[in-house]
This record gives sequence, C-alpha cells and structure tokens, in this order.
Amino acid sequence: MKAINLEEKLTKFDEYWSPRIVAEVNNHQIKVAKSLGSFVWHKHDDSDEMFLVIKGKLIIEFRDRKVTLNPGDLCVVPKGVEHRPVSPEEAHVLLFEPKGLLNTGDTKSDLTADNPEWI
Amino acid sequence: MKAINLEEKLTKFDEYWSPRIVAEVNNHQIKVAKSLGSFVWHKHDDSDEMFLVIKGKLIIEFRDRKVTLNPGDLCVVPKGVEHRPVSPEEAHVLLFEPKGLLNTGDTKSDLTADNPEWI
Repeated sequence: MKAINLEEKLTKFDEYWSPRIVAEVNNHQIKVAKSLGSFVWHKHDDSDEMFLVIKGKLIIEFRDRKVTLNPGDLCVVPKGVEHRPVSPEEAHVLLFEPKGLLNTGDTKSDLTADNPEWI
Repeated sequence: MKAINLEEKLTKFDEYWSPRIVAEVNNHQIKVAKSLGSFVWHKHDDSDEMFLVIKGKLIIEFRDRKVTLNPGDLCVVPKGVEHRPVSPEEAHVLLFEPKGLLNTGDTKSDLTADNPEWI
C-alpha cells in the first residue's frame, strides 16, 4: 500500500499510444498513456473501457459522433462499440480496463501493445 | 457516450463520505466523493478499492502505516485490509470499486451509504 503519483509515472516513458500499468484493482488495471495524433479504429467485444484525461486533449471518435475530453473529463466506451482516439495535442490519459485488454482491440496494428509494462 | 466532467459532478452535492456514481465500467463503478475529518475503520473482504485524489488531501490509515495522497496520487487498498480514510482538509476523491461495494465495508455506521445515487 503506497501512494502512486500519476505525473511521476508519466515521466518514465515517452512513447505515444503505449499504455503502462500503474495499479491493479480486482480484475481490472489502471494504466497511463500518452497520446498524439490518431490511433486506429477498433472495438473491444468483451469489455468497456474508460478514458480519463489528465492533461491535454483527447477526442474519442465514434462512427456517429465525437466526444472531446479535456483535463478532468472521462468517457466510457461500451463494449463492442467502434472507436478511434485522436489527440490534436499531446494528452496524458488514465485508463481503467480489464487485465489483458489489448489496446487495439480487434484490430492488428503496429500500435498493438501485446504486453504492456508495469512502471 | 459522452464527456463526464468530474469537477462539475462534484458541484452537485455537499455531503462528506457519501460517494456518488458517475460511470460504470464492466462490473465496476466510478464514484466521486468529498471527504473531511475521519471515516470509520473497515475492510472489504471480497474487493480491492482504489482512491485517486483530485483535490485536497486524503490520508489512508492502515494498522501499520499511513499513506498520504495529494492531488494526482492514487492508492489501492487490497481486499481484506483494514483501513480508515482521514482528510485533514477537504478532499475530492475518485473511487474505482465493484458495483454494490458498501463504503463502510464490514462496519455498520451512520456513515454507511447503502444505495449511492447516480449524479
């Protein structure tokens, strides 16, 4: 049991779209990620996914709408719903999702992070 | 799918130690709470619990240590571990915990919130 500082964790890596694990809560993990530019369209058939913006701006594009997240905003993407995260400026994001969730869901991509690191 | 702003949600209530639900992610919920003073000693036999401080200061007392959380700090309390949250100054806190988790765990108290509201 210890304090985990998100800003400090975010100094430990620079790669965009490469989530790192900072904690586990039951069957879920808390990850942090940096984003810039466009990610890939994908969905997670078996899981919801939560994005909370700590810094910068993250737009979650859906097929029928866009949701813009500024610091202090969160959005839950329901399971099975196609989405594409886009950051017009660098963002720092906290993710809450089940252990083992693949960042690119059902889409194979160079951005697929098979085995995210603990930091 | 929409943006949920935590600060705006936190303007909707004033009661301390009375978590409100803002979102669901799979079998878990995201809640916000305001804290001031001392909560009760308790544990959750079947669940971990995560505290992330948004504003102010929250100290999580354990039987053998204290963990001080400032804004941007989180702490996971493992299941079965006795703890008492204490806020020497008002804090705003984000909680990740399973649906139905009782705020006072195995301890019955006037602070027990049986049926937290969605806001």
